[in-house]
Amino acid sequence: MTNTQVTHIQIDNYGPWTVTPEPRREVDLQTLQSRLYADLAQLFGNRDGYIFFSRFDNMIAVTNGLDEADHALIQESVGNRYPVSMSLSVATGTTPASALGTATDQLQDAGSAQDEGRREVLKGQTISEEFRTETDVRLAHFDVDDATGKYTDQLNEFDTFIRIEQGYAELMKYMREAHDSLSFFVGGDNVIAVCPELSEPAYQDAIEHVREAVDVELKVGIGTGRTASDAGMDAKHALETCRANGTTVVFEE
Amino acid sequence: MTNTQVTHIQIDNYGPWTVTPEPRREVDLQTLQSRLYADLAQLFGNRDGYIFFSRFDNMIAVTNGLDEADHALIQESVGNRYPVSMSLSVATGTTPASALGTATDQLQDAGSAQDEGRREVLKGQTISEEFRTETDVRLAHFDVDDATGKYTDQLNEFDTFIRIEQGYAELMKYMREAHDSLSFFVGGDNVIAVCPELSEPAYQDAIEHVREAVDVELKVGIGTGRTASDAGMDAKHALETCRANGTTVVFEE
Amino acid sequence: MTNTQVTHIQIDNYGPWTVTPEPRREVDLQTLQSRLYADLAQLFGNRDGYIFFSRFDNMIAVTNGLDEADHALIQESVGNRYPVSMSLSVATGTTPASALGTATDQLQDAGSAQDEGRREVLKGQTISEEFRTETDVRLAHFDVDDATGKYTDQLNEFDTFIRIEQGYAELMKYMREAHDSLSFFVGGDNVIAVCPELSEPAYQDAIEHVREAVDVELKVGIGTGRTASDAGMDAKHALETCRANGTTVVFEE
Amino acid sequence: MTNTQVTHIQIDNYGPWTVTPEPRREVDLQTLQSRLYADLAQLFGNRDGYIFFSRFDNMIAVTNGLDEADHALIQESVGNRYPVSMSLSVATGTTPASALGTATDQLQDAGSAQDEGRREVLKGQTISEEFRTETDVRLAHFDVDDATGKYTDQLNEFDTFIRIEQGYAELMKYMREAHDSLSFFVGGDNVIAVCPELSEPAYQDAIEHVREAVDVELKVGIGTGRTASDAGMDAKHALETCRANGTTVVFEE
Repeated sequence: MTNTQVTHIQIDNYGPWTVTPEPRREVDLQTLQSRLYADLAQLFGNRDGYIFFSRFDNMIAVTNGLDEADHALIQESVGNRYPVSMSLSVATGTTPASALGTATDQLQDAGSAQDEGRREVLKGQTISEEFRTETDVRLAHFDVDDATGKYTDQLNEFDTFIRIEQGYAELMKYMREAHDSLSFFVGGDNVIAVCPELSEPAYQDAIEHVREAVDVELKVGIGTGRTASDAGMDAKHALETCRANGTTVVFEE
Repeated sequence: MTNTQVTHIQIDNYGPWTVTPEPRREVDLQTLQSRLYADLAQLFGNRDGYIFFSRFDNMIAVTNGLDEADHALIQESVGNRYPVSMSLSVATGTTPASALGTATDQLQDAGSAQDEGRREVLKGQTISEEFRTETDVRLAHFDVDDATGKYTDQLNEFDTFIRIEQGYAELMKYMREAHDSLSFFVGGDNVIAVCPELSEPAYQDAIEHVREAVDVELKVGIGTGRTASDAGMDAKHALETCRANGTTVVFEE
Repeated sequence: MTNTQVTHIQIDNYGPWTVTPEPRREVDLQTLQSRLYADLAQLFGNRDGYIFFSRFDNMIAVTNGLDEADHALIQESVGNRYPVSMSLSVATGTTPASALGTATDQLQDAGSAQDEGRREVLKGQTISEEFRTETDVRLAHFDVDDATGKYTDQLNEFDTFIRIEQGYAELMKYMREAHDSLSFFVGGDNVIAVCPELSEPAYQDAIEHVREAVDVELKVGIGTGRTASDAGMDAKHALETCRANGTTVVFEE
Repeated sequence: MTNTQVTHIQIDNYGPWTVTPEPRREVDLQTLQSRLYADLAQLFGNRDGYIFFSRFDNMIAVTNGLDEADHALIQESVGNRYPVSMSLSVATGTTPASALGTATDQLQDAGSAQDEGRREVLKGQTISEEFRTETDVRLAHFDVDDATGKYTDQLNEFDTFIRIEQGYAELMKYMREAHDSLSFFVGGDNVIAVCPELSEPAYQDAIEHVREAVDVELKVGIGTGRTASDAGMDAKHALETCRANGTTVVFEE
């Protein structure tokens, strides 16, 4: 069984802030968003978690190993250093999608994303140390087969980007619907998916689906661990094995 | 006529670097990528340009008003502060897609994205001051109609993200194929498209296409200017007019 | 007894790097140095340590609670994200000065700060969990009495800065020589000193020395804790008590 | 004649903010301060200015070439991205000290550094393009002779730091009082001084003073330019000449 702990991070009342009193300069918004994400990558990452930028104003993290005090400290640290604050909601579930569903529900119950009065909410329950196991987190690291040779070195960069993006859009939707997984583009031609326990045919099936739908060929390495950091590093090694052996799906033992 | 100047930014030999000698920790890669993007947002933005993160290892900027010396200084500043270097190629064209096509060609001619020996290439021509006009850059700022009410406050955050992402994937592809435009997700429910001169029906058509394909409703404000900064701020004001008036397509006068 | 664990951080071969092949732009060096320090503030701070920028190319941290693996991860994370690497040496001692002395010795034994071949040294021993106590770290937080009223709002800013700087130069030297303490300017009119166990007259004596030598009036709050974070926060509260009561030396109970 | 344009940057009401409602965590304050400084180094530096961190809550910049609009944009960009705002005051003068004196006066006239109601003041006059010359800025780059061999590789790092700091404290005071110059420690064993036109004996005299007072031996390279960036790079090259030739004072021709 997989026991993923997922945190939903939401910047409080961000949309209205970006246009009040006048629309703010886009370069400053882009700088703010990407630096906030970088800071959270370090704040969660230094505690062996992973965070994904997804929409930037709403981010999703895998936080096995972080307790409520860790979440509170991260929230406070951002509040001390940014002009915006953020709310956090954490939950667990047997699938990543259900864990996130619970986390989002808790946040929605506390008020709208654009509620002026809702600030720095901190909700939910983390997994007690005694219930944590070595297989709580499963991460799958996908990349596009020979993206540099087939696309980057051949096409107009936007056309390469369209290929990667169409592949990602198909994969994220399919993995959510068929396998209750949460898939995130992480740059280049890489996608990391937070998955429940899935067998090899499930991954083969997803890769086949993307190939048929948008003609993009993927391979994937899968890692398992007590934390996102462990599972993610295993997944990277498994993906290296794919590269070395020309295989499509590899589970790191 | 539109006379967009586009710069293709590519981190040199990045893929191999991320796995040499061993795969590097994902949180460090995420931090590096998002901070590099934030720095470039400031470096281009302080010269009235816009940069989009697209794939992070390959980024695309609208750089009207920046000359070769500006590009060289940005390249040097990154080289002084990061463990990786980057190549830049700049070109102009009557459509953003053709400008980028030329820029990418120049870079590909200089060597592969994964060529160990190709470092800090700087290629291409910028527009001479005398040929610049007040209508050189056209930017369209799209957002999703009532995304907070319909999605963020209602659905599992990943399902909201799927909606936004499917809308973006359709829009980026359609605007490229039908209108030679380059569209970039910039966070939340926002997409900024770099466009040639397009009439209102062209935007209505794109919005209609996305609605039919994936049932996501968009609106758009369009701005025109000598620089990305000017055009982008006009587009934001036009989008505010959409919000205020309930209209779907507004050109800022 | 105080049992301070101190880490000496040194950028490897930094001086030569700043002028090779040509002197690098000062703004890039300043940006690199201050961001590296900010990152280390977070990397150590998220593990309840404190780091002081001192000379920027050599920094000093109080690291009770961090083990060797923590140091290794911090070193790796910087190596992944900066164009320079850093060496770390950690030691303990009954006074902060002697702990740092040991740490520096270990680093010097490994090679010169400008030795091209010495990279990413990691030396020394951390305190075993079983020997840690609630009084291992003592921090004293000094500030200048009414600096805003007497200086900032009255003098040419450089003359204010001279006053603060002369006060700091006297205090750092005196606390080192008389009390084996390490004092660091941390911005504004604030100095944080890492101290062994000292009684009230020792602090009164230091304050008196600075007043006589350079006519700058200080007050100080002292905190004790298992980690720098705990001791430092206690010291801040003690300093607030000084402000509220008009007292000069306050120990947080 | 030298015609230095100096900007005094002051974080608004910063002291009270750091302790309201409770003292904020020191690591967050350190991160905030050093990142704000890094951002300003880029914002001023990309316009060929220099900024020095001095007290962090009050910073001093050499801004020849920046007009009021540049200052306003920098102020806005910080306001968009930080939890604190800052006031700016710019002035010119025949000596750097008198220019800063005027800048500080203008700021003090607008209210106290700890006035809750004084926010984002922008005061003063910049030099009209027509009055700018190639000798407006003079920068002197000092370093300590063989600091690595004499100190860094020999002493406890804090004792090295004491030496550097005592040298700096003497130099900054003497250059201010004897030569109306503003000297700033910039890391390692480096000090950059903003000077009026001074002859070689003036620099020899300052170096002699520091040697006698605290037994620290300095050398210096001096550069002249239309902007801080030009003068500073010349000064670096002059200092390289000192190193190569064993001379103490070199003016870059």
